[in-house]
Amino acid sequence: MADGESGPVTARELYNRVTSQGDRIRALKTEKAPKNDIDVAVKQLLALKVDYKNLTGQDYKPDSPPEHNVAMIQNCSPGADDGDDFVDPWTVQTGSAKGVDYDKLIVRFGSQKIEKELIDRIERVTGKKAHHFLRRGIFFSHRWLQDVFDVPLVVQMTDDEKYLWKDLTLEKAYQYTIENAKDIIACGFDVDKTFIFSDLEYMGSSSGFYKNVVRVQKHVTFNQVKGIFGFTDSDCIGKISFPAIQAAPSFSSSFPDIFNGRKDIQCLIPCAIDQDPYFRMTRDVAPRINYPKPALLHSTFFPALQGAQTKMSASDPNSSIFLTDTPKQINAKVNKHAFSGGKDTIEEHRKYGGNCEVDVCYMYLTFFLEDDEKLERVRQDYSSGALLTGELKKLLIETLQPLIAAHQESRKQVSDEVVKQFMTPRKLAFDF
Amino acid sequence: MADGESGPVTARELYNRVTSQGDRIRALKTEKAPKNDIDVAVKQLLALKVDYKNLTGQDYKPDSPPEHNVAMIQNCSPGADDGDDFVDPWTVQTGSAKGVDYDKLIVRFGSQKIEKELIDRIERVTGKKAHHFLRRGIFFSHRWLQDVFDVPLVVQMTDDEKYLWKDLTLEKAYQYTIENAKDIIACGFDVDKTFIFSDLEYMGSSSGFYKNVVRVQKHVTFNQVKGIFGFTDSDCIGKISFPAIQAAPSFSSSFPDIFNGRKDIQCLIPCAIDQDPYFRMTRDVAPRINYPKPALLHSTFFPALQGAQTKMSASDPNSSIFLTDTPKQINAKVNKHAFSGGKDTIEEHRKYGGNCEVDVCYMYLTFFLEDDEKLERVRQDYSSGALLTGELKKLLIETLQPLIAAHQESRKQVSDEVVKQFMTPRKLAFDF
Repeated sequence: MADGESGPVTARELYNRVTSQGDRIRALKTEKAPKNDIDVAVKQLLALKVDYKNLTGQDYKPDSPPEHNVAMIQNCSPGADDGDDFVDPWTVQTGSAKGVDYDKLIVRFGSQKIEKELIDRIERVTGKKAHHFLRRGIFFSHRWLQDVFDVPLVVQMTDDEKYLWKDLTLEKAYQYTIENAKDIIACGFDVDKTFIFSDLEYMGSSSGFYKNVVRVQKHVTFNQVKGIFGFTDSDCIGKISFPAIQAAPSFSSSFPDIFNGRKDIQCLIPCAIDQDPYFRMTRDVAPRINYPKPALLHSTFFPALQGAQTKMSASDPNSSIFLTDTPKQINAKVNKHAFSGGKDTIEEHRKYGGNCEVDVCYMYLTFFLEDDEKLERVRQDYSSGALLTGELKKLLIETLQPLIAAHQESRKQVSDEVVKQFMTPRKLAFDF
Repeated sequence: MADGESGPVTARELYNRVTSQGDRIRALKTEKAPKNDIDVAVKQLLALKVDYKNLTGQDYKPDSPPEHNVAMIQNCSPGADDGDDFVDPWTVQTGSAKGVDYDKLIVRFGSQKIEKELIDRIERVTGKKAHHFLRRGIFFSHRWLQDVFDVPLVVQMTDDEKYLWKDLTLEKAYQYTIENAKDIIACGFDVDKTFIFSDLEYMGSSSGFYKNVVRVQKHVTFNQVKGIFGFTDSDCIGKISFPAIQAAPSFSSSFPDIFNGRKDIQCLIPCAIDQDPYFRMTRDVAPRINYPKPALLHSTFFPALQGAQTKMSASDPNSSIFLTDTPKQINAKVNKHAFSGGKDTIEEHRKYGGNCEVDVCYMYLTFFLEDDEKLERVRQDYSSGALLTGELKKLLIETLQPLIAAHQESRKQVSDEVVKQFMTPRKLAFDF
C-alpha cells in the first residue's frame, strides 16, 4: 500500500505540498470550515514544514522553491552502492543482477511492505489462501483479486500516453490496445465483472471521465508535475497534462454505467511500482476534489531474460519469453539466453552451489511455479549444488511451455466480438 | 483574416517557430518528402531566421531561447502613446477612451484589415449586401454569415475553460453554458444548420473530439504556450493544455456526425481578436497533423458603457446594457452612465460639437443602427453640435429598447427542449 502523505520523493515535491496545504487552509477558512478541520490541516502544515527543513536544511519560504531537488532516498540511504537504481513511469534501470532494490524503493516512494499480518488479514476476509504472487511478496494477480474479493475490475489502456510518448500514429496506438486487451482477456477475466477501456475511445463515450480529468487538471500545477515526473518546458502539453488522465479512473464517477453515478466507491489499484508517482499525485488531489483516495498494491518488475540489470525490449526477441513463443523458441531462449547463477563447471557447481539471487530461471520460477514446497526445494538444491543449471533450465522450460501454450489457446478464443463486449461501457454484475 | 505565419507576436514565439520549422524539415527528410516540399520549407526557415535576427538583434541558436521576450509591436510602432493596450484571451485593457487601437493590434497579431475589396468579393460571391457590421469593419454577425454562405455553424462553449480559470464548480460552469446557449439560439439560428456544444459534455460523447485534442497536444510544447499565452510554472496543467481544446473544433473530423468523418473541410472562425493567439497556434499546428488551417474573421470589442477604457463586468449592472434589462433600466443606464463625448454646456456643445470617437452612445449606434445614411447623419450632426447629447442618448435608447425586448421575447420561446435539440450531436442539413 502506498501512502502519498508519509513519503515525499523530492524537496520540490515537498515544497509543493507545503504550498498547497497553505492554499487548502486558506480555502477552509474562506468557506468557514469547522474549527477542528482547520486545526488538523494546520498541524499537517507544520509537520510538512518540519519535513521540508529536515530535507533541505532550509525554512520553507513562499515563492522560493528549493534550488536543488534533493530526493528523500539520499537522506534515507546514504552510500555509493545504492545509486544505480532509476525508476520512473517510463524508465526502470538497475545496475544490479539481483534487480531493483525494492526495500529502498519502498522507502523512497513512501510505501509499506506487504507484511505477513496483511496477508493473514486478506486470507481471513476472503476465506481463500493468498495467491502465491502475494505470498512471495513479488506481485499481484488481478484475476485472483477479482475472484476472491468479487469486485468490478476496470482496466485502463493508456493508448493516448503511448501516442504522446512514442513515435507512432493514433491509429497504431489504438491497435496495440486491442491486441493487449486480447492478452488480458485470455487470462480468464469474467466479462460480467470486467470493463477494459481505451483512453482514446472511452474519453469520447463517457459522461464522467473527462469531467474528472478536468477536475484533477485544475488542482495540479506544472510545478508539481515537474517535481513528480521531471517534465521540462520542452515537453509537449499532452505529456504535461497526461497524469490527470491516468488519475481520473481512480474515481468511481468516471464510470457512471458501472457505479450508477456514485462517487464514493473506494478503488484499489494494483500496478507496478514505477507507476506510483501518478497515484501519489492522485492521492494528494483526491481530498481536494471531495473524492476518496485510491489504495495501491505495488508489484515488482518482471526481470529480463538476460539478467535483471538488462532491459526487456519488444524489438529484442531474446530479452524475454514472449506470449507468442513456440515451445521450441522457449526451449532455445531459456537454454541460450537465461542469465545463470550457476558456476562455470559442473565440478565447481557441485562444490559451491548456484546463486538463486541472480539466476533468472529461478526468478521466473518464483512467478510461475505455484507449489511453495517445490519452489523451496529448488532453491535449496540449486544453492547446494545438488541441482545443476541445465536441470534448473529444464524445469523452467517445462513449467513455461504448457503455460504459454494454454495462454495461446485461450487467446485464440478471444474474438473481436469478445473484445468489443469487454470494451463496451455498460452495467456490470453489481448493484450500486 | 489572421495569418499566423506573417506576424509573430514575440521573440519567444518566433524562436519556437524557427525550432519547429527545423523539426519539420528533418521530418520531411526522414519521410523522403518531394524535394520541392523540402526546398519550400527550407526557404521558410531562412525567412523565419531573418525575422528572428531583425527582432532580437541576435542569430537564432538551438537551445538558446531569447532571454528578453521582445514583442513585435515594440518594433513596429515605437512611441510612448501606444503602450497602454493589453490584449490576451483573458484580459482586454486600454487606457484610451477611443478603445483599443485596432490598427496596431492588427500589426501585432499579423492579421489583415477587412478591406473594401474583400467586402466587394464577399458580396459578389453571396449575392447579398454585406452586413453592416462587416461594412463598418467593426464586427461580424454569425447569423448573417450562416444565412449568406449557407454553411454548418458549430458553436463551442468552453465551460471547461471557465471552470479552470474561475472559482466555480463544474456544474455551475455547465449551467452558464445552457443559459448562454439560450441567448445564442434567441438570435435566430437555424437548428438544421447549427450545432452548439459544451466542451464538458461533448468531449464525452464525440468519437472525434478528444482524438484531435491529443493530436494537437502532442505538437505543442510548454515553451510554446508560455510564449503565446504567458503561462507560468504555477499554472495548473488544465490551463496549460487547454489551448488544444480550443483548437480542436477547427478540424472537421472533430464532428464526425456533421462532416461524415471527413477531415478536409475548411473552417472559418469568427471571433473577437483577443482569441487570436489560440488560432495562431492552431494554424501553426494544422499542417503538422495534416489538417487544413482555419481562417479567421476578427471582431472588435464591444465598449463598456462608462467608456471604452473601463471594463464591462457582470457584477456591475451599470457597466453595460444587459440582455435582461427592462426598457426603464435601459433608459436609466444610458442617461446616467453612458460616457458622453458632448461638451459641458449646451452653448459650448452648439459651438464646438461633440466627439464621436469617445462617445459611447455613438459607438453603440454603430453596432445597432443598421441604416448607414442615418448613422452618418448622426455623426455629422453630433460632431457639428446640431445634435445634443440628450437627443443622441434618446436615439440610442429608442434603438436599444425594441431590440432588447425582441430578444427577450425570442429567448422566452427557447425551451430546454430546443436547447437540447441544438446541443445534440447529429447530422445537419448538409451532405459531406
